[in-house]
Amino acid sequence: MAIEITKELLDNVSNLIANQKDTALLNLFTDVHHADIAEVLDELTFDDAVYIIRLLDSETTSEVLMDVDDDVREKVLEQLSAKEIAEEIDELDTDDAADVIAELPEERKEAVMQQIEDEEHAKEIVELLRFDENSAGGLMAKELVKVNENWSVLGCVTKMREQAAEVTRVHSIYVVDDSGKLKGRLSLKDVLMASTKSKIADIYIPRVDFVNVHDTAEDVANKMRKYDLEAIPVVDELGTLVGRITIDDIVDVIKEEADKDYQLAAGITQDVEADDTILELTRARLPWLFLGLLGGIGAFLIMKNFEHTFKENAVLFFFTPLIAAMAGNVGVQSSAIIVQGLANDDVKGSVNKRLIKEMLLATLNGIALAIVLFLFVYFSDADNDLRISLAVSVSLVAVIIVAGLIGTFIPLFLDKRGIDPAIATGPFITTSNDIFGILIYFTIAKIILGY
Amino acid sequence: MAIEITKELLDNVSNLIANQKDTALLNLFTDVHHADIAEVLDELTFDDAVYIIRLLDSETTSEVLMDVDDDVREKVLEQLSAKEIAEEIDELDTDDAADVIAELPEERKEAVMQQIEDEEHAKEIVELLRFDENSAGGLMAKELVKVNENWSVLGCVTKMREQAAEVTRVHSIYVVDDSGKLKGRLSLKDVLMASTKSKIADIYIPRVDFVNVHDTAEDVANKMRKYDLEAIPVVDELGTLVGRITIDDIVDVIKEEADKDYQLAAGITQDVEADDTILELTRARLPWLFLGLLGGIGAFLIMKNFEHTFKENAVLFFFTPLIAAMAGNVGVQSSAIIVQGLANDDVKGSVNKRLIKEMLLATLNGIALAIVLFLFVYFSDADNDLRISLAVSVSLVAVIIVAGLIGTFIPLFLDKRGIDPAIATGPFITTSNDIFGILIYFTIAKIILGY
Repeated sequence: MAIEITKELLDNVSNLIANQKDTALLNLFTDVHHADIAEVLDELTFDDAVYIIRLLDSETTSEVLMDVDDDVREKVLEQLSAKEIAEEIDELDTDDAADVIAELPEERKEAVMQQIEDEEHAKEIVELLRFDENSAGGLMAKELVKVNENWSVLGCVTKMREQAAEVTRVHSIYVVDDSGKLKGRLSLKDVLMASTKSKIADIYIPRVDFVNVHDTAEDVANKMRKYDLEAIPVVDELGTLVGRITIDDIVDVIKEEADKDYQLAAGITQDVEADDTILELTRARLPWLFLGLLGGIGAFLIMKNFEHTFKENAVLFFFTPLIAAMAGNVGVQSSAIIVQGLANDDVKGSVNKRLIKEMLLATLNGIALAIVLFLFVYFSDADNDLRISLAVSVSLVAVIIVAGLIGTFIPLFLDKRGIDPAIATGPFITTSNDIFGILIYFTIAKIILGY
Repeated sequence: MAIEITKELLDNVSNLIANQKDTALLNLFTDVHHADIAEVLDELTFDDAVYIIRLLDSETTSEVLMDVDDDVREKVLEQLSAKEIAEEIDELDTDDAADVIAELPEERKEAVMQQIEDEEHAKEIVELLRFDENSAGGLMAKELVKVNENWSVLGCVTKMREQAAEVTRVHSIYVVDDSGKLKGRLSLKDVLMASTKSKIADIYIPRVDFVNVHDTAEDVANKMRKYDLEAIPVVDELGTLVGRITIDDIVDVIKEEADKDYQLAAGITQDVEADDTILELTRARLPWLFLGLLGGIGAFLIMKNFEHTFKENAVLFFFTPLIAAMAGNVGVQSSAIIVQGLANDDVKGSVNKRLIKEMLLATLNGIALAIVLFLFVYFSDADNDLRISLAVSVSLVAVIIVAGLIGTFIPLFLDKRGIDPAIATGPFITTSNDIFGILIYFTIAKIILGY
C-alpha cells in the first residue's frame, strides 16, 4: 500500500508517538511499503524515528533502514543497542547487511557481529566486508541459486526450492562444477519450459556474462547496461562463483554516479539535497565559492598589473567579464564531453587526437564568435578603433582555443592518473580558465596595441 | 561471446566486406552478442554497416539495430527497403518495434507497417505509437505473461508456457479478471514453490504496484527505483492491463535523463558524444557560447555606462571578473540543487520557504567570503581605502544573495510552468547572473562612494 506523505500524516504520527499509542501506530504502518515508511522516518525527528524502528518488527525495519537517508540511518543506529542492530542484520541480505556494518564505528562493528544469530550469515558478511565498496565484491550479495552441472533437473528442484526461499528474487540459476567454478546458467524460463527428465549438463547455457570481484562498480554498471542484464554472477580469481549483483543495486550506482558528477560540475562537494540543513549546504558549497574568490583575486592582480599599460585604453578592461565568461563556458563544455565520454567508456584512442580535434572545434567556434564581437566593438565605439576591436576579437579566439584544450586535457590527465575526472568540471575549470583567459587577453592586447 | 573492438578487428571486417567474404564474416559474428556487433557497426562506414545488417539474420540484426547509435540506425534504415525493415520489426518486441517505426519518415511508416507479417504484432505496434515516447505508454511492451484469477495453477501452466515463449524475460505473472482488469501478481518464485493443485485466486498477491499509460517516464523511473521493481504493469484509464515496463528500459531513461541534465548544466544542447563530428559538436555548443557572448557584451555596456562615474577609482573595474564569477558560481549551485531535487521528487512545500532558506544560506556564505575579500582589498591596496574595500565586499554579499535567489527561483518557476527546469542551469544562469551581478556591484559602489 502506498501512502501519501502529508503534514497531517506526520503530525498524526508524532502525536501517536508522544502519547505512546503503539497499537494505533502498528495499524497505521500495516502493509505499508518499507520505502514509504522510510520517507515518513526521514521527515520525523530522530527520536521519533528510533521509536518507530523499535516498535515495528525487524523484518520490516531492516528494509526501512536501507531506504532512509544516510544521516537518519546513522543517528538511528547510534541509538540502537548492538543486539538490536544484530536483529536487523539477521533479516537483511548479505550485501545490505555488509553495507550497514561498514557504516558503524569500528568499536561497534565487532559487538554487533558477535550478536548475529545465524553464523553462516555472519561469515558471509565478514567475507563481503573485505571488498572495496565501489567494487563488484562490495556490491554483490552471497544469496543466489546455484546447481551442480552433474545433477538432474528433477533432483535439483528440491535444492533450488530451498535456496530460492533464501533469495528475495530469483533471476538466474547459476550452474557450477564440483569445485564451485561458474560454468553457465539456467534461466527461470528454461526451468518453466524444461522437462523434468533432462540433466542440468544437457540443458544449461554455457555462455554467461560475469564480473570479477575486483571490477569497479562503474564497469559492472556499464556491462549490465550494455548487455541489458538484470543480474550478473561474480567470480573470484579462480573463477569460483562467489556472489551475484542485481540490477536494482546497479540502478542506484548509476543514479549516484550521475548525481555526483552533476554536483561536481555545479560546484557542490558533498552529497547534499535541497532539504538538508543550511550548515550541511554551506559545507558543500562554500569551499568551491572560496576557490572562485581566489580566482577572482587572481584576475584582479593580473588586471592591476596591466593598469598603467592601458591607462589610455580603459575600454579594454570592460571586456574582461566577457573574456572570462567565454573561457569558463568553453572549458566546461569540453570537460563535460570528455567526462561523460570517460564515464560511458566511449573515449578511446590517443590524447593528441582529442586535443587536435578540440583545437579545430574551438578555432571554428572562436572565429565565428570573434567576428560578431569584432563588428560589435568596431561599430559601438565612437572612435571605430580598429586596434581595440582586433585586440579583443583575436584574444577571444586564442582564449577559446586554450580554454578548450585545458578542458579537454585536464579530465583526460586526471583519468590516466586514476583520479575521478569529474572534479575537473565546474568551478575548478571555470576558475583556472578565468585567470588564463584574462592573462592571455591582456598579453595579446599588449602585443597588438604595440606597448 | 564478448569481443574486443580493436583497430585490427575493424580493418579485418572492412577488408572482408570489400572482398565480399560473406562466410568469413558470418563466422566472425557467430555467437557474438548483439551489443558488441552494434559497437563494431558504430565504427564502420554506413555502407559497411548496411552490408553487415543485410548479411546477418534478422533475429540478430533487429537487436543490433536497437543498440547502434541513433545516427547509424537512421542511416541504415534509410538504405533498407520497407520489406527489409518489416522483417526486423517482426523480430522485435513491441516496445522496440514501435520505437523504430516512430523514427521513420512519415511516408515510410505506412509502407513498413503493411509489410509486417504478424497482424497481431502490427496491431499492437499501432496501439503503442499513440503514446508520447516519454510516457509509460511509450515505454511499455505488450509482451507479458498474464493469467485469469479464475484458472487453476495446473490449468494455467500450459497457457503460461505459451506466453512465456513470446516474452524475452518473465518477471512477474500478472493476474487479471474476466474483463482484463489488473488484480494482482504471481512471482515466478511463487510458481516454483507452489503446489500445482492450488487455484490462482487463492495464491496470487493482490497488492501490485502499477502505473498509468499517461504517467511520465520520469515518474515511472522514480517509482521503480523507490520500490526496487524490475518490471511494472501498465494499466489504462479503466484499470485494464495493457502492457509492462522492464527495468532495462528504465535504466536507459535514468541514464539519458542524467546525461541530458548534465549536458544542459555544461552548456551543450544536443545529445552529443566525444566521438561526434566537429559540425555536430559545434551545433551543440555554439548557441550557448553565443548566449555567453551576448552576456559579456551586456556586461561591457554596463561598465561603459559607469566609466565616467569611477574615473578616479579604476580599481573598481578590476573586481568585475570576481563579482561575475561568484554570481555565476552561486547561481549554478543553487539551481543545481533545485533541479536535482525536482528530478528526484524531493522538493515539496512552498516556494517562499525555499527562497528564504536560500537567502539565509547565501547571506551566510556571502558574509564569510566578503570578510576575506574585505581584508584582501584593504591590505593589498597601498591607500588602504576603506570605502573601496567596503564597496567591493558589501556588493559581494548582495550579489551572492541575488544570485542564489535567481538560481533557486528560476528552476522552480520553470517547473511550475511545465518547462524542464534543467535548462535553467549552466550558461543561462551564469550569463544572467553575470549581468545582474555587475549591475548590482556598480550601483552599490556608487552609493557607498557617494556619487
